[in-house]
Amino acid sequence: MLGNFNYCNPTRLYFGENALDSLKYELQKFGRNILLTYGGGSIKKSGIYDDVIKILNLCGKNVIELPGVMSNPTLEKLYEGCELARKNNIDLILAVGGGSVCDYSKAVSVSTYCEGDAWEKYFINMEEVNNKIIPVGCILTMVGTGSEMNGGSVITNHAKKLKVGRVFGEDVFPKFSILNPVYTFTIPKYQMVAGFFDIMSHIMEQYFSGDDDNTSDYIAEGLMKSLITSSLIAVEDPKNYEARSNIMWTATWALNTLIAKAKSTDWEVHMIGQAVGAVTNATHGMTLAAVSLAYYNKIKSYGLKKFARFAVNVWGINPAGKTDNELADAGLKALEDWMNKIGVVMHLAELGVNESMYQDIVDGTFLLEGGYKILTRDDVIEILKASM
Amino acid sequence: MLGNFNYCNPTRLYFGENALDSLKYELQKFGRNILLTYGGGSIKKSGIYDDVIKILNLCGKNVIELPGVMSNPTLEKLYEGCELARKNNIDLILAVGGGSVCDYSKAVSVSTYCEGDAWEKYFINMEEVNNKIIPVGCILTMVGTGSEMNGGSVITNHAKKLKVGRVFGEDVFPKFSILNPVYTFTIPKYQMVAGFFDIMSHIMEQYFSGDDDNTSDYIAEGLMKSLITSSLIAVEDPKNYEARSNIMWTATWALNTLIAKAKSTDWEVHMIGQAVGAVTNATHGMTLAAVSLAYYNKIKSYGLKKFARFAVNVWGINPAGKTDNELADAGLKALEDWMNKIGVVMHLAELGVNESMYQDIVDGTFLLEGGYKILTRDDVIEILKASM
Repeated sequence: MLGNFNYCNPTRLYFGENALDSLKYELQKFGRNILLTYGGGSIKKSGIYDDVIKILNLCGKNVIELPGVMSNPTLEKLYEGCELARKNNIDLILAVGGGSVCDYSKAVSVSTYCEGDAWEKYFINMEEVNNKIIPVGCILTMVGTGSEMNGGSVITNHAKKLKVGRVFGEDVFPKFSILNPVYTFTIPKYQMVAGFFDIMSHIMEQYFSGDDDNTSDYIAEGLMKSLITSSLIAVEDPKNYEARSNIMWTATWALNTLIAKAKSTDWEVHMIGQAVGAVTNATHGMTLAAVSLAYYNKIKSYGLKKFARFAVNVWGINPAGKTDNELADAGLKALEDWMNKIGVVMHLAELGVNESMYQDIVDGTFLLEGGYKILTRDDVIEILKASM
Repeated sequence: MLGNFNYCNPTRLYFGENALDSLKYELQKFGRNILLTYGGGSIKKSGIYDDVIKILNLCGKNVIELPGVMSNPTLEKLYEGCELARKNNIDLILAVGGGSVCDYSKAVSVSTYCEGDAWEKYFINMEEVNNKIIPVGCILTMVGTGSEMNGGSVITNHAKKLKVGRVFGEDVFPKFSILNPVYTFTIPKYQMVAGFFDIMSHIMEQYFSGDDDNTSDYIAEGLMKSLITSSLIAVEDPKNYEARSNIMWTATWALNTLIAKAKSTDWEVHMIGQAVGAVTNATHGMTLAAVSLAYYNKIKSYGLKKFARFAVNVWGINPAGKTDNELADAGLKALEDWMNKIGVVMHLAELGVNESMYQDIVDGTFLLEGGYKILTRDDVIEILKASM
């Protein structure tokens, strides 16, 4: 554990089957005008929408609805939300949905009062936020992104074929998040397992960096083991409360800054995955799954000791008589087996990628420096080919 | 992961060799009158005192010193601090020291403006704090208690032969804590390893409860593994920054409410250890070490599966061909070996306990309900005997 860092996570979490009961207390802290953001309407079918509206009404709130937040929120949608928020003098953005809705709400939160173009300022130039920030609260219905307890936000600019993630500071973190595992029971299986892989990818991208023996790595190993165990239960029995609740809690801690402490962190899989998403509009977690094995096989030799440790500490592979290289291979094989068992997309072709898209994907892939190997554009092409 | 719980930890942490540089920013948030609490003067020898005073002076603060906070802070000392804080209209209590100084400062924080007797109200009747709370900041020089990021406070009443721990709510948590691993390099070895065992005990007392498969347990296992690895390095090489920094960070996360989530938690070892401390004034971590093996052997059969898991997941014992009972024994043997290697006190007699004290220790031991077995007074006597 080296270097200097700060830690503070101000988000207040309410967890469990009765978590929504706390919404009324949180609402007292904010003004009257609530922007209610949500997606395609599944919260209406599940009844969550009615429950939330009832509480908002009881608390005397003025609710402005903003439905139709898509799974890869677009720049046009961001501008729409900003206009609505400005016009209605919004006091709190209440996101009801998965990571996309939370991500989107944070983008509206910082962009509404931005002078100049928010896309240029906050997603391209990555400037510090220096305007009024509208508070955000989340009611989570899908797990994976960790957006409920961090400053992450991802916006897709289709005109530019760019899907850009930005991590804002703690003043943009949700003020509160309501995490009821039961809300995740009715997610379609495809979305559910995409979320599982997103969680795994978050943990791996922080874990596979650095060569010291680090408390963050041990916590990451624990989170991976919890996820692996519970995900295998959940794919067979999606309404298993214990499994779904473990996964929900693991997802939050996988990406709320804790296990990144004292780590350089990699995030290259997310860069490639996001570039695939910008071109195909495919589900985020599946874009990560489709490129991960090729990526990790590519960088394995540059961080061999860590890959060997991954095999032993996460997958329980007996190291006796094995070289680091054999262990590393066995670990990645175990990862592959788990991916097959939970049923993620294993090939880019299944997401609609074809060779003609390679150039756009490479152009849209930011090449980062935190992992075991800095990729070249040729490396990315190779990874895409190997992922087909 | 079952039940309903909330999570919010507002403490801001500054970690690393340059962590003290952030003190000046934090001091801006508070008024002029600072109560500087510390222990026996080791911070003067190490130079930390001078560094802190320099920053306080540069920030124009009015510093009221309160030295002499002992390792088991007494009720008399608490009253002294309250009087000083009230008389000087203190805006911030700045604790420079280990867990005792932090614990003590939190007790002063809630007790200064308490109507009626704070001992009775907050440590015996465990009432909610309903008076003004003076903010606390910590500069940590010793690790173990986790007091830097929680609401814990322990006060010893020698007249009543009681050492009582209280966990206050998040409004009593330190507003900030400065964690520089280098500050821990000069602690005497006895205190250092006592701290190591205190950390281990915190984790084990949360881990050994409940029978579900819980994310908190996986995180706890990661923390234990990190502690075991780094403690073995630190006893050989106390100035090993990586090891000491891992231990410092592990200690914070071992007792800041995270791994207690969705757990009933045990804490009986702390109850017995504190009762021993009240009678002998022995070092906290050593009182825990001296009774732990007897305690865990006593309760082992009531939580056998968890003890077997402990052996495999924490100590890496190969489960092949072993019964749960054999695994549990092997895990406790591994714990014992580690305790011997780091050099903690293994017998109560070494702490000055003799048979004539048994009654007072049993009388001072609160019998809790969260663990695998609710002890009787006879059980406590048996554990004391087996710990001699």
